[in-house]
Amino acid sequence: MIIDCHGHYTTAPRELEAYRQRQLAGLKDPAHIPAQGSLAISDDQIRESLEPAQLKFQRERGTDVTIFSPRASGMAHHVGDATTSRYWSEVCNELIHRVCTLYPDNFVGVCQLPQSPGVPPANCREELTRCVQQLGFVGCNLNPDPSGGRWTDPPLTDRWWYPLYEKMVELDVPAMVHVSASCNPNFHATGAHYLNADTTAFMQFLTSDLFKDFPTLKFIIPHGGGAVPYHWGRYRGLAQDLGRPPLRELLLNNVFFDTCVYHLPGIELLLKVVPVDNILFASEMVGAVKSIDPETGHYFDDTKRYIDAIGWLSAPDRRKIFDGNARRVYSRLKTSSAGSAATGRAAT
Amino acid sequence: MIIDCHGHYTTAPRELEAYRQRQLAGLKDPAHIPAQGSLAISDDQIRESLEPAQLKFQRERGTDVTIFSPRASGMAHHVGDATTSRYWSEVCNELIHRVCTLYPDNFVGVCQLPQSPGVPPANCREELTRCVQQLGFVGCNLNPDPSGGRWTDPPLTDRWWYPLYEKMVELDVPAMVHVSASCNPNFHATGAHYLNADTTAFMQFLTSDLFKDFPTLKFIIPHGGGAVPYHWGRYRGLAQDLGRPPLRELLLNNVFFDTCVYHLPGIELLLKVVPVDNILFASEMVGAVKSIDPETGHYFDDTKRYIDAIGWLSAPDRRKIFDGNARRVYSRLKTSSAGSAATGRAAT
Repeated sequence: MIIDCHGHYTTAPRELEAYRQRQLAGLKDPAHIPAQGSLAISDDQIRESLEPAQLKFQRERGTDVTIFSPRASGMAHHVGDATTSRYWSEVCNELIHRVCTLYPDNFVGVCQLPQSPGVPPANCREELTRCVQQLGFVGCNLNPDPSGGRWTDPPLTDRWWYPLYEKMVELDVPAMVHVSASCNPNFHATGAHYLNADTTAFMQFLTSDLFKDFPTLKFIIPHGGGAVPYHWGRYRGLAQDLGRPPLRELLLNNVFFDTCVYHLPGIELLLKVVPVDNILFASEMVGAVKSIDPETGHYFDDTKRYIDAIGWLSAPDRRKIFDGNARRVYSRLKTSSAGSAATGRAAT
Repeated sequence: MIIDCHGHYTTAPRELEAYRQRQLAGLKDPAHIPAQGSLAISDDQIRESLEPAQLKFQRERGTDVTIFSPRASGMAHHVGDATTSRYWSEVCNELIHRVCTLYPDNFVGVCQLPQSPGVPPANCREELTRCVQQLGFVGCNLNPDPSGGRWTDPPLTDRWWYPLYEKMVELDVPAMVHVSASCNPNFHATGAHYLNADTTAFMQFLTSDLFKDFPTLKFIIPHGGGAVPYHWGRYRGLAQDLGRPPLRELLLNNVFFDTCVYHLPGIELLLKVVPVDNILFASEMVGAVKSIDPETGHYFDDTKRYIDAIGWLSAPDRRKIFDGNARRVYSRLKTSSAGSAATGRAAT
């Protein structure tokens, strides 16, 4: 089985965006009392949004199941307040649940959290619990910068985040470290902010004892780990110069990288320098780069092709990247059929 | 000849730091009138600071000349105001000039600029001109985030920066895009802020028409280009999706990467994906990573070894990386002896 651990519902029916616009309009009206409101999207609309996109690509590329979450840039935690984020997260997560219910073999849910700048992350415990226990989700996306490019909250290794981590450990779910839209004109979202956040989070982990406090806490750093594998020597050296333990001992039981790197030489580097146990297959389709690479004639984000092209990768290692590591990290995915596994466990 | 385009005076005599501490103490005293003050460092002290460090490593590693600038993390443009930065930059640049005068065959100067958050970069024209025309410097370091991790100034592609670019073009000097210390606890300086700034600047260039306005403006993105070469496919795809020209046409006449990547697989990737004409040899010694890699028995930042180890790199391409490209980008370095070239040209 081939598990793609990084997909967002970027093709959601336009009613979702209309909902969001109504919500944002309400923020401008002092007399408006926030409420969850309703989202009228039919099952057929959901099918129509997925069939020519994520499902078509799954079939064409030969991948089986996508760990699926709301659109990352749409989370926009910097907009409104914690109540805004709460309703918006609930609506987005419920839509993901409907996707996973309609296509239990193709999608497994990961939730958006109702983060808000300056608001203690403990406020996310309730929605995380609901998504895992009631909706059968297997993880969450955690935004290390809810301010959207101002970086005003504490680092991920601060005790500020601990109440959420306690809940993650209790529920046995990992977080993908994933920022949202950037409201800082310096940072293009998918071309800078995303990768910077990945790099930033890794260095935060490197300089802290977070995983002594939470030995079973797990993070996936997406987009191939930002700049980290390319600078693996720098990070090994920085750890050494700072008197930290070697990376393997320091954080490689807890930190994993996905394969959202959109060319063969990048994937080769990733597989060369990062231990195979720490790499999870992912494409982020349909996501940051949507077109076909004129140099190869294939989609930039068809990352399976790059991995398939690496002849020196052994069959057992390939299985780890495509399947075994995802089951280990998203440990609520237990049985041979990933999709029904998550649903099954949620029902117990 | 082997030109290392990225070295900082990280080993300056402690009197420099004492000067800075006096300057910062003055900031806290409302009655204090800022003045440049004086820096008592002897020639012997300068020699003693370089002989067992940069000069020793040049000899051991077989490099010839280092394009040398004040310590990057010491610039700290976010501290004080523009007057603080002006005096501090003048003192640091004059110290670099003394280094280059004492060792004209080993060092060529690049200046720190008196940037300050919120202050138009036009204020840097005077110091840049002085350093180039009077001190024989061949370039400058340009901090894309003078706020030190808050990113409050406009992107490098904003007209805010144009008066400085006009002067750079007039003087025919490039800028290395280099942030300084981070005062944002999210960003470790050398492990996150530096690499993030590199990635950020590249994406700013990708989304703008800056090089239509300044066809001869040149930037070096250090630390191997941050995350960029590892994600070269992503950037090619983003340019395509955004309707921008191909990277080569869009920015590769103007944007160059150094080789400060501290392991062989990273250097291999860089040389595989980035055109050879856009790569300049550099080590940043003595810099971010100071120790020996236990996996190789050699210094992490001995980047020449990695390039030497790449068998498929042709001799002409190797010469471009070690020498020719630096002369082209730092075009005030014209003759066969790089050091005396800069000094000679300054004297004309």
